[in-house]
Amino acid sequence: MTEQIPEPLAPCRVWSFSAQTGPTGAARDDVVAAEVPVALVFNGISHAVMMATPADLHEFALGFALSEGLVDSPADVYGVELLGSPAACEVHLDIASRCFARLKERRRALAGRTGCGICGIDSLEALDIVPEAITPRAWVASMPAATVLRAIDAMPAWQTLNAEAGAVHAAGWAAPDGTLRDVLEDVGRHNALDKLLGRLALQGRLKEDGFVVMSSRASYELVRKCARLDIPMLATISAPTSLALEIATRAGLQLWGLCRSPRATRYVPAA
Amino acid sequence: MTEQIPEPLAPCRVWSFSAQTGPTGAARDDVVAAEVPVALVFNGISHAVMMATPADLHEFALGFALSEGLVDSPADVYGVELLGSPAACEVHLDIASRCFARLKERRRALAGRTGCGICGIDSLEALDIVPEAITPRAWVASMPAATVLRAIDAMPAWQTLNAEAGAVHAAGWAAPDGTLRDVLEDVGRHNALDKLLGRLALQGRLKEDGFVVMSSRASYELVRKCARLDIPMLATISAPTSLALEIATRAGLQLWGLCRSPRATRYVPAA
Repeated sequence: MTEQIPEPLAPCRVWSFSAQTGPTGAARDDVVAAEVPVALVFNGISHAVMMATPADLHEFALGFALSEGLVDSPADVYGVELLGSPAACEVHLDIASRCFARLKERRRALAGRTGCGICGIDSLEALDIVPEAITPRAWVASMPAATVLRAIDAMPAWQTLNAEAGAVHAAGWAAPDGTLRDVLEDVGRHNALDKLLGRLALQGRLKEDGFVVMSSRASYELVRKCARLDIPMLATISAPTSLALEIATRAGLQLWGLCRSPRATRYVPAA
Repeated sequence: MTEQIPEPLAPCRVWSFSAQTGPTGAARDDVVAAEVPVALVFNGISHAVMMATPADLHEFALGFALSEGLVDSPADVYGVELLGSPAACEVHLDIASRCFARLKERRRALAGRTGCGICGIDSLEALDIVPEAITPRAWVASMPAATVLRAIDAMPAWQTLNAEAGAVHAAGWAAPDGTLRDVLEDVGRHNALDKLLGRLALQGRLKEDGFVVMSSRASYELVRKCARLDIPMLATISAPTSLALEIATRAGLQLWGLCRSPRATRYVPAA
């Protein structure tokens, strides 16, 4: 690694569909938010890897150390050094030996692993972001924006928990013609997707043709999970991140974002 | 634990402020989305704890096992059993010994811990959700909705990454009169908050009077982090979860949600 930190925005190419541009869409250059693994290294020991936007990383590391109770005050942090590569960052913190002893004690008590994917693993070596190749389907290649929006527009009527309480994400399963078949809800977007995949599995429908729609942004772990189950397409209401787009491209998953009637956007990597 | 699973919605009491109700607000009963730790236990070994909404947990466990590659097909899961208490759940999965051997191998390779708080630790015993008591401030007790909205309304102009790419959260620091002083951005809401706290620390401003505003929902870990740094108030654009409200109440943190001009809502526990 060098001192070269990735940019906080990453280029991409999009097709924007709207009532104005019509069904063929308009291709243009755009950007997505960078989402890169950032390893937080305390006194030489990699403690946690967070998926983050590579900006203000000095602030990030210091704030994390304080808000997680790893140090008691800013004075316990003697130095911070940033290292980067095009695809990852490391922040090295030099902390007081009193805090470091406590951290080592805590690590012994927590032999865990991450739940939601990458976030929380303890070193960059443990990353698993190389997806399976998805089986191509003809109906995906010719997917019209109107079909995507048909599924997206049908979601709110199914989001019963969100209607009552707010703050609840939804994952939906749509047939190739955009008919919404199932919607599962959770405060965590990756949990909502896991519930949907579990529903399909319980009903013996994992081989059923269809695509996933989400009320959230498209982050890397949603694409990673879809690829693992050979799901060829994901459409989200908010935008994708850079890593979601990268994994989608490697897997051959078609990625739609900012799907808000009458607009929808298909994302591909920068040329 | 018993077979009693918590409800997916939890009661609360709110004061809704709007142009109609005026500065005194209108108190009423409401609900928030339940957010409880769900331990995923494979063949008797607690593997991950996810913060989730306690609904469709059978689907959740099966989907998680498949999408994380812990099992290869639904047939590898021989049985699923749910156990619950008012504050947590366990899902016990009985999986094929081939998959379990692989899981144990993977656990040995990942001696990690969670980054964002609870999500990802491996057992309920490792939970740390009892917050510090926050120092009361007179200006918080008399906080008007208009001051909260002054800070919230000022945020978009500072959200430069989000304006370009979408899908980016923001954490802001506001003076007691609602003047917005700092905004930091990240694809992860907890990262954005850590960046903001790090900014305050770097500038020697951790004792400065003020409150945090967030573009996201209020989830437990945001409240937990604020309490650790003695921050007395959090206002979010989306709604809080049940655990966020519970931790806020224990810590003495004032919690505002659904802050969208001209409306704002203050949340307290059900009477």
